[in-house]
Amino acid sequence: MSSTLYVCVTCRGNGDISAGEPRPGARLLAAIEHGSAEVGEGVAVIGVECLSNCSRSCSAAVAAPGKWTYVIGNLDPEQHAPDILAFARQHSAHELGLPVWRERPEHIRKNTIARVPPIALKESP
Amino acid sequence: MSSTLYVCVTCRGNGDISAGEPRPGARLLAAIEHGSAEVGEGVAVIGVECLSNCSRSCSAAVAAPGKWTYVIGNLDPEQHAPDILAFARQHSAHELGLPVWRERPEHIRKNTIARVPPIALKESP
Repeated sequence: MSSTLYVCVTCRGNGDISAGEPRPGARLLAAIEHGSAEVGEGVAVIGVECLSNCSRSCSAAVAAPGKWTYVIGNLDPEQHAPDILAFARQHSAHELGLPVWRERPEHIRKNTIARVPPIALKESP
Repeated sequence: MSSTLYVCVTCRGNGDISAGEPRPGARLLAAIEHGSAEVGEGVAVIGVECLSNCSRSCSAAVAAPGKWTYVIGNLDPEQHAPDILAFARQHSAHELGLPVWRERPEHIRKNTIARVPPIALKESP
């Protein structure tokens, strides 16, 4: 099943924000949506409010039923949209959401905040 | 649906480990299983290898179908098993896995590493 990329739109990043300017999280979502439209289908992109990774923002998470969930941090809206999109596509293509480590973009390898196993939908016997 | 508590058994915590001694992650799992047995059913406890939160270990995650997933860090095997178990029970009791903030144990509030929205099992129309 294809993966969903959740992008925190409330992230403030590491810099100051001027009044009236879009937040870095919102800029990251826009950059990801732009990149996603360019490469076509495969990953659903959804903006969400707060992934609780504020100290290492901007943040995004990749998840799908039956797969590992990943949270990625320190995403720069001006730099890392292609990296998180590439990782989301790798996640989507792997049965368990575990792309080969060395094939993941460098920023993803170095800024993985956490991962969580697939949820067992059925109780063990 | 009741929640699952994933406990990283490979976590090394912040201290040195003597050869032959169980890792802090394994000690945390043992403490949680002991506490869980005392209070009875409600939360499934599963040991896993690496939640990718090594720099702020020991680590655990709480998840359930249709609910928010939480990753908690800086868990001391000698101190925090009751806190993470209490949070897992609160998560299990809440429809969306969003216990009231002020009712969560203090260590959980201060050491939430990340959270991820519920996975939509059906595509939007």
